[in-house]
Amino acid sequence: MSTEMLPFDAAEALAAAALRASGARAEAAEQTASALARADLDGIASHGLSRVPAYAAQLRAGKVKGDAVPAVTRPADATVAVDAADGLAYPAIATGIAWAASLLGRAGVVAVGVRNSHHAGALGLFVEDLARDAGAFAIAFTNSPAGIAPPGSGTPLFGTNPVAFACPMAGRDPLVIDLSLSVVARGRIMIAAQKGEPIPEGWATDDRGNPTTDAKAALAGAMLPIGGAKGAALVLMVELLTAALTASHAGFEASSFFDDAGGPPRIGHLFLAIRPGAVAADTDVVAARVAAITGRMLAEPGVRLPGDRRLALRARNRAEGIVYPTALLAQLRTLAAGSGPG
Amino acid sequence: MSTEMLPFDAAEALAAAALRASGARAEAAEQTASALARADLDGIASHGLSRVPAYAAQLRAGKVKGDAVPAVTRPADATVAVDAADGLAYPAIATGIAWAASLLGRAGVVAVGVRNSHHAGALGLFVEDLARDAGAFAIAFTNSPAGIAPPGSGTPLFGTNPVAFACPMAGRDPLVIDLSLSVVARGRIMIAAQKGEPIPEGWATDDRGNPTTDAKAALAGAMLPIGGAKGAALVLMVELLTAALTASHAGFEASSFFDDAGGPPRIGHLFLAIRPGAVAADTDVVAARVAAITGRMLAEPGVRLPGDRRLALRARNRAEGIVYPTALLAQLRTLAAGSGPG
Repeated sequence: MSTEMLPFDAAEALAAAALRASGARAEAAEQTASALARADLDGIASHGLSRVPAYAAQLRAGKVKGDAVPAVTRPADATVAVDAADGLAYPAIATGIAWAASLLGRAGVVAVGVRNSHHAGALGLFVEDLARDAGAFAIAFTNSPAGIAPPGSGTPLFGTNPVAFACPMAGRDPLVIDLSLSVVARGRIMIAAQKGEPIPEGWATDDRGNPTTDAKAALAGAMLPIGGAKGAALVLMVELLTAALTASHAGFEASSFFDDAGGPPRIGHLFLAIRPGAVAADTDVVAARVAAITGRMLAEPGVRLPGDRRLALRARNRAEGIVYPTALLAQLRTLAAGSGPG
Repeated sequence: MSTEMLPFDAAEALAAAALRASGARAEAAEQTASALARADLDGIASHGLSRVPAYAAQLRAGKVKGDAVPAVTRPADATVAVDAADGLAYPAIATGIAWAASLLGRAGVVAVGVRNSHHAGALGLFVEDLARDAGAFAIAFTNSPAGIAPPGSGTPLFGTNPVAFACPMAGRDPLVIDLSLSVVARGRIMIAAQKGEPIPEGWATDDRGNPTTDAKAALAGAMLPIGGAKGAALVLMVELLTAALTASHAGFEASSFFDDAGGPPRIGHLFLAIRPGAVAADTDVVAARVAAITGRMLAEPGVRLPGDRRLALRARNRAEGIVYPTALLAQLRTLAAGSGPG
């Protein structure tokens, strides 16, 4: 595969131009491009510029509204409700995060619901921002289009429903945890199906809920959650905290993030930020506790902190540039030139 | 095994009497007895009256302070900090939950940290109370004495770190999720070791972090988290949200809940309650969304909601009484008569 190296700023600018040319208002295009380029910087290509062609197609089809402006209400002292209004997710999330940071000092805990939203990309970025910029312990949940079936069924009802967490660490980047609740990403099953290869047991079931190693049967079936019934319960918890609590579409109602078919996905996200010191008597002790816990982990040979590989990639990619498939960049340049499809 | 049937009220009164006679102040004994008897009602014997002898021994040894009174501070508008003061967990949690309910209307979200605490028992009971009595979506986290090793190590550093969630459901008991993050409870490995039986692969590692089916090697090693590295990351997330954020002991610092050796365990709990309608524009829609999501699940043949088995047991045990081992009841009666050990 032919590749090209792009500095972060150039990647961000190219994505923004492609999204603007596809109908996104300027600020929404910039916020989206920034989140996607940051994901690429961290080596999370599945949530990076590779998403721009699909976003652009959905903007052109009106499945994502390019001129949507997030609408904020404040139903209670410590909460924020953001209506993404069928636009891209990132402007709505940025609005919610900024509100959370501004309320955190006084409230001590803030909850932000984002509804009628779209693909939130690498969820860890937002909790990392809350940890770094607002000094918060932050948790994020999002639902996503159906891929996982409830135990006892082969019918996918809920998404892989990612969970992200971050907390500040003295003298270094925040500790970030970012994971989906499926055993593997659907993309890995798709690749096996394309190659005609089997998949390991434990990844997926067929459409009757029976275990399968046939990748094509798995694509027609459901992905398995981590931890069996326990993971399935966590998937449901995230679905209720997002789809129900933010009054958005459930996984079984949400349209795909990948094509321009159907109406807007209208999924929901929930962000929780807690200020250290607000649930215990002493602020400084919290920082010391984080240092003691992570220090004890690192005293074990072979143990590392979650996210450390990502931070190493970030440093390297920032210095050397991000490697992109030439074909993807050509596609984005065509979009940016305004001569894309539609 | 000889058993005896006890009505809920009698079980609660017996546990309270045993705890009072062991040195717990009256209200603390009653709150603890109530939580333990409620766990038995739900069929969760591992968090029921079976714990009283160990609690009593710790009260007598001063490892748990019987006269501790939870101390509340309000560091921010929407948060509550409770110092359990090395007493039993339940009085501190009851205090925090009551504060959360009183603040929820105005704040929309409330965080309660409980520090210097002890075994919280069946965590699902508290989120269920918040859902039923305060109409909240509630999440609870607690850490616990070390049992799980970080990936790459065979040294247990963190507990099985339970997570509980509840939300109101129209016309019935709240939906409750309550799970620990280990594949199985340590008790199941202990039973296998006592019987000299092997355990399945995937439950535990030996003390070098290698997979083992030898139950005795597993007890000297570590329990495995659900979902491999993803579950281990969730264990760490819970540890940071509890031990770090509430400034309490980490799993590797906490003494056992089961014997009177060492100082107080001093672990931490975190409770989050969110008022439906506080993170979206419309309160009623949230209830309708919960009904739609759970209704869609139940439309699948063979699918049931988490906690339904527990609710069925609760109804039966409330009507018919709770079955206890005769030996346990004899032990509690001896304690209650004030002629226990110590």
